[in-house]
Amino acid sequence: MLLPTHNGDRYELTSATAMPQAAGFLWNQKMMIQITCRGYATAQYMQPEPAKYAYAPNLEAKTFMQPEQNYYAHHPGRFFYIKDEETGELFSAPYEPVRAKVDRFNFSVGKSDLRWRVEHLGIRVELTLGLPVADVVELWSLRVTNISGRPRKISVYPYFPIGYMSWMNQSGEYRPDLGGVVASSVTPYQKVSDYFKQKDFKDKTYFLCEQAPDAWEVRQSAFEGEGSLNRPAAIDAETLGGSDARYETPTAAVQYRLSLADGEARDYRFIFGPAFDDAEIRAVRAKYLSAAAFKASADEYAAYVAGGEGCLRIETPDADLDNFVNHWLPRQVFYHGDVNRLSTDPQTRNYLQDNMGMSFIKPGVMRAAFLHALSQQEASGAMPDGILLAEGAELKYINQVPHTDHCVWLPVALKVYLDETGDYDILNEDVIGKETGVALTVSERVSSAMDWLLQARDKRGLSYIAQGDWCDPMNMVGYKGRGVSGWLTVATAYALNLWAEICETTGASSSLAESARHFRAGARAVNRVANEHLWDGDWFARGITDDDVSFGTRKDKEGRIWLNPQAWAILGGAANAGQRASMIAQVDEHLVTPYGVQMFAPPYSAMRDDVGRVTQKHPGSAENGAVYNHAAVFYIYSLYTVNESDRAYDLLRRMLPGPSEEDYLQRGQLPVFIPNYYRGAWREFPRTAGRSSQLFNTGTVSWVYQCFVEGLCGLKGTAQGLSIKPQLPSHWNGIKVVRKFRHATFNVSIERADVDAIQVWDGENRLTENVFTGIVAGGAYALKVLIPR
Amino acid sequence: MLLPTHNGDRYELTSATAMPQAAGFLWNQKMMIQITCRGYATAQYMQPEPAKYAYAPNLEAKTFMQPEQNYYAHHPGRFFYIKDEETGELFSAPYEPVRAKVDRFNFSVGKSDLRWRVEHLGIRVELTLGLPVADVVELWSLRVTNISGRPRKISVYPYFPIGYMSWMNQSGEYRPDLGGVVASSVTPYQKVSDYFKQKDFKDKTYFLCEQAPDAWEVRQSAFEGEGSLNRPAAIDAETLGGSDARYETPTAAVQYRLSLADGEARDYRFIFGPAFDDAEIRAVRAKYLSAAAFKASADEYAAYVAGGEGCLRIETPDADLDNFVNHWLPRQVFYHGDVNRLSTDPQTRNYLQDNMGMSFIKPGVMRAAFLHALSQQEASGAMPDGILLAEGAELKYINQVPHTDHCVWLPVALKVYLDETGDYDILNEDVIGKETGVALTVSERVSSAMDWLLQARDKRGLSYIAQGDWCDPMNMVGYKGRGVSGWLTVATAYALNLWAEICETTGASSSLAESARHFRAGARAVNRVANEHLWDGDWFARGITDDDVSFGTRKDKEGRIWLNPQAWAILGGAANAGQRASMIAQVDEHLVTPYGVQMFAPPYSAMRDDVGRVTQKHPGSAENGAVYNHAAVFYIYSLYTVNESDRAYDLLRRMLPGPSEEDYLQRGQLPVFIPNYYRGAWREFPRTAGRSSQLFNTGTVSWVYQCFVEGLCGLKGTAQGLSIKPQLPSHWNGIKVVRKFRHATFNVSIERADVDAIQVWDGENRLTENVFTGIVAGGAYALKVLIPR
Repeated sequence: MLLPTHNGDRYELTSATAMPQAAGFLWNQKMMIQITCRGYATAQYMQPEPAKYAYAPNLEAKTFMQPEQNYYAHHPGRFFYIKDEETGELFSAPYEPVRAKVDRFNFSVGKSDLRWRVEHLGIRVELTLGLPVADVVELWSLRVTNISGRPRKISVYPYFPIGYMSWMNQSGEYRPDLGGVVASSVTPYQKVSDYFKQKDFKDKTYFLCEQAPDAWEVRQSAFEGEGSLNRPAAIDAETLGGSDARYETPTAAVQYRLSLADGEARDYRFIFGPAFDDAEIRAVRAKYLSAAAFKASADEYAAYVAGGEGCLRIETPDADLDNFVNHWLPRQVFYHGDVNRLSTDPQTRNYLQDNMGMSFIKPGVMRAAFLHALSQQEASGAMPDGILLAEGAELKYINQVPHTDHCVWLPVALKVYLDETGDYDILNEDVIGKETGVALTVSERVSSAMDWLLQARDKRGLSYIAQGDWCDPMNMVGYKGRGVSGWLTVATAYALNLWAEICETTGASSSLAESARHFRAGARAVNRVANEHLWDGDWFARGITDDDVSFGTRKDKEGRIWLNPQAWAILGGAANAGQRASMIAQVDEHLVTPYGVQMFAPPYSAMRDDVGRVTQKHPGSAENGAVYNHAAVFYIYSLYTVNESDRAYDLLRRMLPGPSEEDYLQRGQLPVFIPNYYRGAWREFPRTAGRSSQLFNTGTVSWVYQCFVEGLCGLKGTAQGLSIKPQLPSHWNGIKVVRKFRHATFNVSIERADVDAIQVWDGENRLTENVFTGIVAGGAYALKVLIPR
Repeated sequence: MLLPTHNGDRYELTSATAMPQAAGFLWNQKMMIQITCRGYATAQYMQPEPAKYAYAPNLEAKTFMQPEQNYYAHHPGRFFYIKDEETGELFSAPYEPVRAKVDRFNFSVGKSDLRWRVEHLGIRVELTLGLPVADVVELWSLRVTNISGRPRKISVYPYFPIGYMSWMNQSGEYRPDLGGVVASSVTPYQKVSDYFKQKDFKDKTYFLCEQAPDAWEVRQSAFEGEGSLNRPAAIDAETLGGSDARYETPTAAVQYRLSLADGEARDYRFIFGPAFDDAEIRAVRAKYLSAAAFKASADEYAAYVAGGEGCLRIETPDADLDNFVNHWLPRQVFYHGDVNRLSTDPQTRNYLQDNMGMSFIKPGVMRAAFLHALSQQEASGAMPDGILLAEGAELKYINQVPHTDHCVWLPVALKVYLDETGDYDILNEDVIGKETGVALTVSERVSSAMDWLLQARDKRGLSYIAQGDWCDPMNMVGYKGRGVSGWLTVATAYALNLWAEICETTGASSSLAESARHFRAGARAVNRVANEHLWDGDWFARGITDDDVSFGTRKDKEGRIWLNPQAWAILGGAANAGQRASMIAQVDEHLVTPYGVQMFAPPYSAMRDDVGRVTQKHPGSAENGAVYNHAAVFYIYSLYTVNESDRAYDLLRRMLPGPSEEDYLQRGQLPVFIPNYYRGAWREFPRTAGRSSQLFNTGTVSWVYQCFVEGLCGLKGTAQGLSIKPQLPSHWNGIKVVRKFRHATFNVSIERADVDAIQVWDGENRLTENVFTGIVAGGAYALKVLIPR
């Protein structure tokens, strides 16, 4: 069976060939590792910028994480060869590099470890990978069992390629004193100033064995010889040759020669990671490399992940969805808020949204992050393109390209936090500007950001786009300083309205009341000009270029309709009911695919140099017409705001692979996370449509969680308490929900009944406003919710 | 036999496994390609910065060319699989990726093409790679012959992997209209300004077939399937599957299904390269892809390379040396002067020396380059770290690190040019400063550069090193502004003396005579302080750090003795005869190895952070204690100036692999070029000592050529004519030389005889001064030179 199965709270896959890119990922406070079912791995850690300890065989570019990672024979990975010493037969676990057709294969993705069980040639190999909470160490367990019914002689060869570490130096040797392979390098530098930045880098990679191996090979070329990774020459020999590496690509391959009685098993443990020097390696070994330490680390790590538990537990007719929402989605939300994508300069919008998700998990993290972001606000009220998190960090890559949308995300993220916590006190917190040194309250800073949005508009009142807005922006629409963004215009109205609503809710001062009026008026003005200049008859246009060409309109053969302007026109109030109906129908027709809703369509087939970056991506490419989940979830979120429950559920469900086998195989991903995109261009390139990017860094997940909590379950916080307004898809008769909210627990049973409107019952009492108030911390409440059929 | 053989003017190798890195290289005015005997290739072209059209399978860093290229299964290359359709047996030519033990193998490196002949399974495969003179196109010929004595059915699969082109987009398809595979990509950009730089880039890679293939596969993953490059799944099938690639790694694999009678041969031609669009691909096909065009291109290319013929033809007792000096060395010199290492910002010292070599080949090129370099002189007299060659070029990599030696190379290079051409008129040429707009003569500019060297010294009179001088400088000796370079101090004296000599020779004006006196006095002063502060008893120290620590001295356990200060103290006159004898003995003892003379010894085992970059390179690394040929050749050159003929010859000979098989195998390189280094640390790491860097970009070769022309043959130009002073090694009885000089040809026979001093005979006339004067352009002279036994 090729379909992955959910087992306990783990996902399991029983074929390495059906979904070759299927991967699990683990992270801790310093590192992350993504590893495929076949054994290829991508691991990074912070020192303080992202760094590696296992490398490609050539000099790789340093860049942001790439989607749809391309694997090839020498890609970094973690492999275990097994050789039958009597017949010379060979296979490798998990699957690469030998690619033998094994008898049984099982890849099991847990929340706090990854496991494999492979059986072939009468040998069972069980592998477990875990991480500790706060060190950069991979903890590998290996159990080898003779299941052949007769005594066996085998060799077991853990093979952890280390790769091309540096052009300045690299070497490696087996170190009996440390009990493993240690490879050394020097991070390249040319400028003296780089030396001082880099001299404390962890330029060594270690692979340590709890039990001393019988032989080893440290030079990649000696390991392969004139063989290949399928059949390394060194493995054909009786024992590994004991090489070292001197300015040669190092590897860590060791050999255990075993005689196993029938049924006999052997256990091995290994650790793999970077270090500064021998002393650190010795310390890491002492701390981690034992059965007891592995057990303690696993317990501690499980507790760490459990600390990221979500605020929602559901029981619905869709068990796959329950698994995802209860186990995997909050874990992905927690990952984002916990380590900020292992970046030192997250994009401002990402930083705000990733932490926004923590409102549902650890609201204190969101609170601190929000204040930290505001401390980097510019004197003008503008927010920078990225938020610096570490001493010496700099804005890199896309953060060097001016975008105009960052202020929008302040009230958007804040509103979620306030709804979940009711912590309106945050508005009065003083925040000292990092550059300016000026202390302003959160309210003053958000107001200042909103005024910045109001002024960053052209004479018509439309929002400038500069070199980009959000969600795969087109960077040449407005680089001359005149072009405007349709999305940002309607998003500005949404942000202004949200902030006005917050000001109205607190109502604490006359100045906030005045702010509310001011921004409400601003939003109305913005929406008016959006309708005047951007409404194209059936939908809102995406923008107007420097040279006054509207695009994302009916006249365009490519890039005709874009999702974001429609979703945010619903959220921000630019669209009236008639317009909404029209837009939703057009989205259904042009953008919805079996794998979700595309960001735009039709895809561009060639560059439009008045529009820019996204148009450079030809049809079939990752993001051109992709099902960009971050855009999709805003559309879904907007659908919940206008009671389009069925459409919203349908599109939410399409964010996950399955339930059909065909759908799993096409997406090529286990449903343990939501990727940043699925391939789009379904109408043009059906072969690749739906394929997962395999990239789990995405602003999507906070919003998906919010859609489940506040949309589908309808259990949303207000200043007064918990509002109850479920929006189940019409084919569901009911669900059960456990919702944690403001330190209380709500057991909510939602059922269809012969009612005209939602009824909420607290025991015998019906709530008149469908808002539960007077919540006591530590309280447990049972609510029964009746919804119309 | 594993020993490479010289055949005509080609080098041949009959094993792909003995010297797996052995490579040939071809270049033209736009590109270069280095390709190993096994089929791995590294190709670059200019647009205008170095670019690729076949890529690694991952996102490679852009960097300068790396030594000791690491090859791995998916490294770019050009391969041809042959499958026996009756038995399913498979091999590949040249050797990778199948690595079959073939019956016969021949790799033949010519000056203008590269060829392979491989026989296996009764099939002979003959491959030829050529380039045209001025386009970026690989011209591949394939002949397949049935030599099995019976009819055969086979499939032939050219396989040209294209790799990971871009993260912004990549795709590929078979284009029947163009007759081959076309892969497309978009060079990544994020900043709008990059778009305008890149929009005309050749973002397509084509592989075109003269004869339409029977099938193809364009997606790398479809080609390999669950097989591997040793045995691709697509080749196991009867016909290739006809895939395309959509944001997937493209490849070019095509299939020809053949029935061959006994002895029957088939010829195929292919072209491979980058293009902007379909129109360009169509044009390239029309221009090149035919038997007639291949023939015409080969002839034109051979003529182009022949245009780089040298000025020397020798016949000595060492045939291997003759081959190298007559065929390969001038070709490598020509390459450097012709295309400036395919860089847009060559380091100033490289640019001057690479063009200096053209004095022996195309002196006009050197003349123009010298003027061009001077036009970038700064107002202070300093030379910049790199010379910009293209519009929009920028100083990159190491050229952003301030070095203090560039002025030294002006008189050094100029002197060679003047000696070879007698073109003293160049001194009066006006050169307008690019930045300053000021016109100064060459004389004035060189004098200004020499004065800059004189002032760039500390209170003691020693030359500042800043962040580096030359030849793997240590970048932390003087970054605080105080440290000095021992080498640069004695090199300054050499430069001043050379320039003074030039000024004396012209004697055209009193101001030049005054300059001569001024710089002679400067040189004396510099040499005096060098002796005072740097002489360490047996050799000159390498320098003195910011904190006043001398290094490269007896007290140092590592980096105790350095070659460059000794060589240049001989050249510049800092060393007297007694010091020379001492230094030479110490170099013999500490630095000479079977593979040449190391740059310093002993190697550093750890960082010395007062000294810097080179010390970061641990023992066994490429440049730490390496036989750095550029440093070595100056030592050899200095030996010729003091009549150390035997030592000089011995070390020159060690620059080439061979003649023993053991030596070839250890170096791993064909003697068709001199690499920038051989591995050093011979005393510490004998396993890897001697291994070639395989990098043919090196300032070494101009000097090696000069050593042969002016040292060994002793046929050096002077203002008046041709000076004759051979310095044969003592075990040679004589040599014959053809020397082209100032448009005349000299047939020189040099023989040992019972003479006390060199005698030069022009027929019956003995030259009194051993200088041949009155040379007439077009003249042919026969000289007989008698040298003492």
